[in-house]
Order: sequence, then C-alpha cells, then structure tokens
Amino acid sequence: MSLTLNCDLGESFGSWKMGLDELAMPHIHQANIACGFHAGDAIIMRKTLTLAKANGVSVGAHPAYPDLQGFGRRSMNCSHEEIVAYVQYQIGAIEGMAKSMGLSLDYVKPHGALYNDMMAKDTVRAAVMQAVAEHHSKPALMLQAVPENALHKEEAEKLGLSLHFEAFADRCYDDDGKLLSRTKKGAVHTREKMMAQVQQLIDSKTVTTVSGNTLPLLADTLCVHGDNEAGVKAIADIRALIDA
Amino acid sequence: MSLTLNCDLGESFGSWKMGLDELAMPHIHQANIACGFHAGDAIIMRKTLTLAKANGVSVGAHPAYPDLQGFGRRSMNCSHEEIVAYVQYQIGAIEGMAKSMGLSLDYVKPHGALYNDMMAKDTVRAAVMQAVAEHHSKPALMLQAVPENALHKEEAEKLGLSLHFEAFADRCYDDDGKLLSRTKKGAVHTREKMMAQVQQLIDSKTVTTVSGNTLPLLADTLCVHGDNEAGVKAIADIRALIDA
Amino acid sequence: MSLTLNCDLGESFGSWKMGLDELAMPHIHQANIACGFHAGDAIIMRKTLTLAKANGVSVGAHPAYPDLQGFGRRSMNCSHEEIVAYVQYQIGAIEGMAKSMGLSLDYVKPHGALYNDMMAKDTVRAAVMQAVAEHHSKPALMLQAVPENALHKEEAEKLGLSLHFEAFADRCYDDDGKLLSRTKKGAVHTREKMMAQVQQLIDSKTVTTVSGNTLPLLADTLCVHGDNEAGVKAIADIRALIDA
Amino acid sequence: MSLTLNCDLGESFGSWKMGLDELAMPHIHQANIACGFHAGDAIIMRKTLTLAKANGVSVGAHPAYPDLQGFGRRSMNCSHEEIVAYVQYQIGAIEGMAKSMGLSLDYVKPHGALYNDMMAKDTVRAAVMQAVAEHHSKPALMLQAVPENALHKEEAEKLGLSLHFEAFADRCYDDDGKLLSRTKKGAVHTREKMMAQVQQLIDSKTVTTVSGNTLPLLADTLCVHGDNEAGVKAIADIRALIDA
Repeated sequence: MSLTLNCDLGESFGSWKMGLDELAMPHIHQANIACGFHAGDAIIMRKTLTLAKANGVSVGAHPAYPDLQGFGRRSMNCSHEEIVAYVQYQIGAIEGMAKSMGLSLDYVKPHGALYNDMMAKDTVRAAVMQAVAEHHSKPALMLQAVPENALHKEEAEKLGLSLHFEAFADRCYDDDGKLLSRTKKGAVHTREKMMAQVQQLIDSKTVTTVSGNTLPLLADTLCVHGDNEAGVKAIADIRALIDA
Repeated sequence: MSLTLNCDLGESFGSWKMGLDELAMPHIHQANIACGFHAGDAIIMRKTLTLAKANGVSVGAHPAYPDLQGFGRRSMNCSHEEIVAYVQYQIGAIEGMAKSMGLSLDYVKPHGALYNDMMAKDTVRAAVMQAVAEHHSKPALMLQAVPENALHKEEAEKLGLSLHFEAFADRCYDDDGKLLSRTKKGAVHTREKMMAQVQQLIDSKTVTTVSGNTLPLLADTLCVHGDNEAGVKAIADIRALIDA
Repeated sequence: MSLTLNCDLGESFGSWKMGLDELAMPHIHQANIACGFHAGDAIIMRKTLTLAKANGVSVGAHPAYPDLQGFGRRSMNCSHEEIVAYVQYQIGAIEGMAKSMGLSLDYVKPHGALYNDMMAKDTVRAAVMQAVAEHHSKPALMLQAVPENALHKEEAEKLGLSLHFEAFADRCYDDDGKLLSRTKKGAVHTREKMMAQVQQLIDSKTVTTVSGNTLPLLADTLCVHGDNEAGVKAIADIRALIDA
Repeated sequence: MSLTLNCDLGESFGSWKMGLDELAMPHIHQANIACGFHAGDAIIMRKTLTLAKANGVSVGAHPAYPDLQGFGRRSMNCSHEEIVAYVQYQIGAIEGMAKSMGLSLDYVKPHGALYNDMMAKDTVRAAVMQAVAEHHSKPALMLQAVPENALHKEEAEKLGLSLHFEAFADRCYDDDGKLLSRTKKGAVHTREKMMAQVQQLIDSKTVTTVSGNTLPLLADTLCVHGDNEAGVKAIADIRALIDA
C-alpha cells in the first residue's frame, strides 16, 4: 500500500484568502477541509469541495475548537461532551455538502490544538474517537503515526473505528517518535532532508531522528502544506517520488 | 389529513437558556431545531435531538442568517450563493447529528428574518429552495400558508421539492392573507380568539381576517410557541383540539 | 475601611437574559460589567451602565477570554500579547461608553477562566497586570484575597498599578486560603454559614477554613451573586450586615 | 487647506493578512482602523496603532456592522439603538488602545455597508451621528462629499459634531455626485484618469462626471487604497501631487 498525500485546505474565511488550494489540489490524494470553526465558512467549503471533486481527491473533515481568531491553534479546556458535539457538528456540515455534490466524507482529521491535544491527552482522544465512531456514515479518523499507535488501534477497535496514520514530510522527529518542537533548531527540514525523509519512509517505513537513530514509523499518509509556492512545489515533488 | 403542530426549539445558547423545550416537546409533532447561526450550539442541538427522539417528534432544521447577537431577526443583504451555502451548512450539521441518533431530518423551516425574506422576496426564496432541493436527503421545505402558495408549489415542483404550509395559531391575518403587523392592534390573538382560529382552520380551512372576511388558508401545520408556561398550556390545548 | 460588595452584571447577550441586574444593582457598591467577549453585547453594556449610574454604583470592566459559547469559563492557551490586547480592547469598549455617560471606569476584574488563570499562573497575571497598568486612565485591578497577596502587591507596585482584593461570601476556604473546589462537599456555604463568614471577615479579617482553622484574609471587597432571587436576597442581607 | 489622504487599514484578522499596511502608512495622513466587527482583532489593532504612531498618522475608528464573515459589506437591518451601541463600542475599544499609546482618536469613518447606509438613509445617519456626537472625546465624523453636504452639516451642527468630507480618487462620479455603480463601465478610473481627478479636485474643487459635466465637490480628504502594490504606488503618487 503506497503512501497518500493529505493537505489542509479550505482555510480561507470570508474576504480573507489563505493557501494555494487550486495549485495544491491536483497533487494530493486527501483534502482535509476546514469546517467553519477555525477557518472555512460555508461558501469556502462548497468551493473547496467543488475543487476536490474536479480533481478526484478524497474528502476529509478538518474540525477544530471554536476559535476563529486563534485559527484553532490555542488549546481550549473543553469538556468531553463539548468536544463530541463540536466534532459531530462540523462533520455533519461538511458531509451534508459533500453528499449533495455526490461526494462521500471519507475521514476526519482534527486541526491544530485539537489535533495536538488528541495526541497528548487520553481524554481528548476519547472524545474525538467517540464523536467519529458514533457518526452514522463511519468515516475513518486520521491521527499521527507514533510509537503508541498500537494502543490507539486498540482504543479504536473497541469503537469500530478505522484509523489512518500520518507522518510529516517536513518535520524532524525526536527519539520518542514525536515531532521536534518548532522552538528547536532543525525542527523543520530543509527541502533536501524532507525529500530524504519521504524516500526513507517509502523504502523502509522508518525515519532518522534528530539524534541520528532509526525509528520505525508506520504511516499510511503524509501531511503536506500548500500555503505558498515553495510548499506546492514540494508537494508536486513528493508526489512524483511516491508515484515512482 | 389533520393539522400538525410545529414549534421552534433548541434556541438556548451556551450558558443562556431560552424556551421550555422539555414541556413543549410532548405536545408537538414537529420540532424546528436551531442550528447554531441564530441560536443553538452543538451541545444544545444534541440535547434537543435527544428530547425529540424520546418524544417521537419529527425533526426539522431551523436555519438562519449568521447573526447570533440579533437572534437571526435582522435581515441581512446576503447573496444567492451565500444563502444557499448557509442553509446547506446548517442542514448538514443538524442532519449529521440526527442520523447518528437514528433520526431522519424531515424538513427545513427557515428562521426569523430569513423566513420573512423568503416569503417577501423571490430571490431569497429561490436561494432557500435551491439549498433544500439540492440537499441529498431531500427534506421538505416549510413555508407560510398564503394565497400565493400555488406559485410556490410551481417553483418547488420544478426543483423536485416538497412543501409544508404552515398557519399561525395566535396571529391575526389581514385580507391579503398576510400576518397583521405586530405594530397593529389585535395582531396577536387572545387565547379565546386563538382557539377559535384553530377550530375554524380544522373545520373549514379558512381564517377570519382582521376586517371580518373569511379567507381560505390551506395549511398542513400550525406554528406554536413554547417560550413560557402560557405558551406551553396553549400548545397542549390546541393539541387536544386537533386530536379531538 | 469597610468592605464593599461587587457583583458580576450585564451578562445577558442579544435575546438571552441572565441575572437579576435591576434587583441586585441597588444593593452593591461595584458592578463588574461584561464587555462582549463572554457575555454582554454593546446594547446590554449601555443598559447596565445606565442602571449603574442610576444607582450610584462604581463601574468595573469584566473582561474575559473570547469565548461566548463557553461563557468565558474555559481556559484558553493565549499568548502574553493576546491577553494584553484582549483585556485592553474590552477595557476601552466599556470605558468609552461609561465616560460618554459621565461615569468613570474605576477598576478591572477578569472573568471566569481568565480570573482563575490569573490567580494560578504568573504568566497570565503578568499579562493582565500589564494590560491594566498600561491603560491610560489607570483603573485598579481586582483579584482574589489570598495569602500570596504580598507578592501580588509587589508585582503591581512595579507597574504603578493599584489592587483591590476580594473575598467570597458564599465559598468555603481551604487551609491554603484557596477556595475549596466545587467538587468537594461543603464548597458552597449554606446561607447561615455565609452570613457567619461575612461577619467574621468584618470583625476579625479572618475566615474559618474547611478544617476549622482560622486564616487571615485581607479583603477590600466581597463578591456576591445576583443570578436568582435567593442570591439577591443574600446580597441585601449582606449589605445590611456591612452597613450595620 | 490642502487635501489629506485617508486609507482603510488594520483589516487583517487572526491568521489572515489583508492589505499592505506597512507600505501604505508612510504616505497617508489618516488611518481608518478596523475595530474588530468586520476585521481587525485586538492584536491587529495594537499593531496598526503602533504603525500609525511611528509614521505620525492621525488615527480614526473604522466601525462596521457585526459581520466578520461578510467583511461588513452586507447591509443589516439594525435598530437605531443597535447602531448607536455598536459604533460607540468600537470607538471606545480603539480609543482606549490609542490613548494608552499616547495617541488621540481624531475621527470616525464607518465601514462598508454601514457607510453606504449612512449616506443613503437618514435613519442610519442619525444613529451614527448620535453615536459619535455623544462620545466623550468628541471625534469628528468622516462621510462622503456629496451635493447634500449642506444638509449633513446642519444635522451635525445640531449635535455639536464636526464633519470631514471625503472624495474618492479612483471612482467615477455620476451627475448627482454619487459614485457610479461598480456594475457600470468606467466606474473605477484608470490610473491616468485617477490622477487627473485628483489634480482637478486640488485645482478647482470639482470633478468631471461620467457624462462630462463639471460638478463642485467640497472634499477635505481623499480615500485611497493600500490593498496591493499598485494601490500603494498610486497612494505615493497622489501624495506627491498633493504635496506639490
């Protein structure tokens, strides 16, 4: 099974534009589409779905904490019940539009702080998993490929939930299989190191950590970024590597 | 076919409570549930759906302009594209939750200013009708029973859209079949006149207008209000009349 | 210097009502007025200021995290810069209205999670203190009376900032001078214990903790609640005690 | 008295950037700064004020309808009381920050649909005028230079309100002194025609209308746009013309 490319898209809002969606979409397999809580109003969602359909790209919901001003990047101390309800609301909103265009909603990938909290806290992950597992159309949940994934699989199986594991093309890993903090030197790879990391993931399902160790990383998909032209160029190049 | 009772519900928001949903729900047939744009956050929506399910009440989406502060009661000059997208977003959000609870979304009734604009302006009605007609699960659209309904039926048939027509139990009608403006004396019926109007609608499918004329009004459903205890009492009494 | 009574007010929003402001206002000295981030839109703010003016009550800003849905009760991981900006924005909004009515803005009391974070985290308190200290009209900052207040005074003096310390009439204290968690039994006093705690604060500037110890508590003001009729009655009784 | 240049600035929001504020600011006299209702959160407001201060630019509030998603460009059917409260809230928020930086708030220029409604409807203009006139620091109100300005001056004088009149550098005028609708050909001037219009305003306080007539236009200030590099270049050139 070869790696897919997933990308956060539809993150404009109202009159504000963000991301080169038109340029990125042709190169990716999976579009994580913002659902209005951190970005992406209803108009933008319809446009992004139309673009995904035109490019034959799989559609995922990209739900977030309700924090437009903070772009969903600030952790909020939400209750279990709140997280379940917020995630289901956003899934429903994007799925309704998708199905009305003849598309299915294939998966859910939480955004920003909700994603980080899901990976760091059992309680948040339990709420996200419940929200997705209880959703009638049974989308998969996309989360980070980490050494603890066996545990995550167990949690998901109890709920009848499918998982996709994603690795990051451009981020350096530490020896625990976590992303090296962006405050640390070398946290974001040069282009050359990024391409090498992708090749290594394809060849051996491992990454070389910041300290030079080799760490197994079982990823189904790679997260890529279409924020600017350099990012789009990188996506195209990574796609070529994968297709080769 | 006997009249049904529909009621706006789920209009609390966050820490603010509105309406006696628990008391009103047992007496009605159709719950118009707020979808987060004018009222009703994701938590409230789930609670209201749970309550509807427990009472065997049919579920409708109650979408609005994006105006929490104004409770969706202020007309906004939205484009066709914006109205379509806003309505579809809200339908999807509530339907996703409903289906995950084993409920279907049966119909859509616009709220407040969006409802009024839909009745008053062809352009707004065209946008609302398109939004609902294009929605994959084909809910019906609920609008006001007025003399122009034959035209509305034609519009809807072209789109393959079903319509429900609603009359108002407690509002006085003018000779054009419009609701008498709330600024006019006698616009809101006394309890006695309300019960008489309901009985007349059941018996003869007509209303007596402000000037004393008899006007045909072909209604499928009656709009009732559960804002306070007097309203809930009225709902129970109207229900008894209908069931008799 | 006798104790004053401060109360959170103006916490309605749009069509949603909260609190018995008209009933509580005549009995208090200081009104903590919501500024639109967790509650209290611009209309409500003007009404609440008008009410404060009519009752000769001192006006304070009651700023919060930007979280209407969560009523400002959920901690948000905001940066120093964000907290400073959010607090100053809210202070300015309420002060502009107050001054246009001939009122001054006397102090600032953070709301909910921002208040709790300010008491628990040096970083949040530093941001709140900077925001208030840099504000041109030099309002005071109201925070909780705790054993660490000498430290808080030092922090404030460096910034030229005045402080008001508040105790809680209806909450039981633990031996560290913190409020006993609401999840614990006896966290909220009965009416009788509340009145005894107020009398003790007046007489000896101490409280009796959950374990029966006597703890000094140097408070300038008491926080009271006007949410319901029992709360308003308690405010009136506490006021009578203080005035006696 | 020579013409000044005013420009809408601070219209980014959260993670979304809009406008070349850093490039435009050095060339203008007056910055109309968004106040959070249509754009410009508290962080952006502080940054924009800092930039205005560094460039010695006069600060104006740029209040709008509460419509972030529509960028304040959609007319909303707000009451007199709502418009007064919304405008005063926004004035206070920006003025508080400005004064804390040692800046004064000199004037208020409504944004988008609120501006258009103010020019088109007596009721909206009355509300805006009252909001600004009642504000304690007595800022001026900026509105469009039109043939009806004598009437507007009368209205303002009754309230003790100062007015600034603005003309548009890049927009073609019709024979009534209104801006030619953007849907009409020639509504937005070529660069050459724009420069000619500015020169004519300086030389003779007139514009040449779409039909070739010469119309007197008594303007204090010119509205210019810093959205993109061409816009900033135009601002610099117009400034050179004015300073010559």
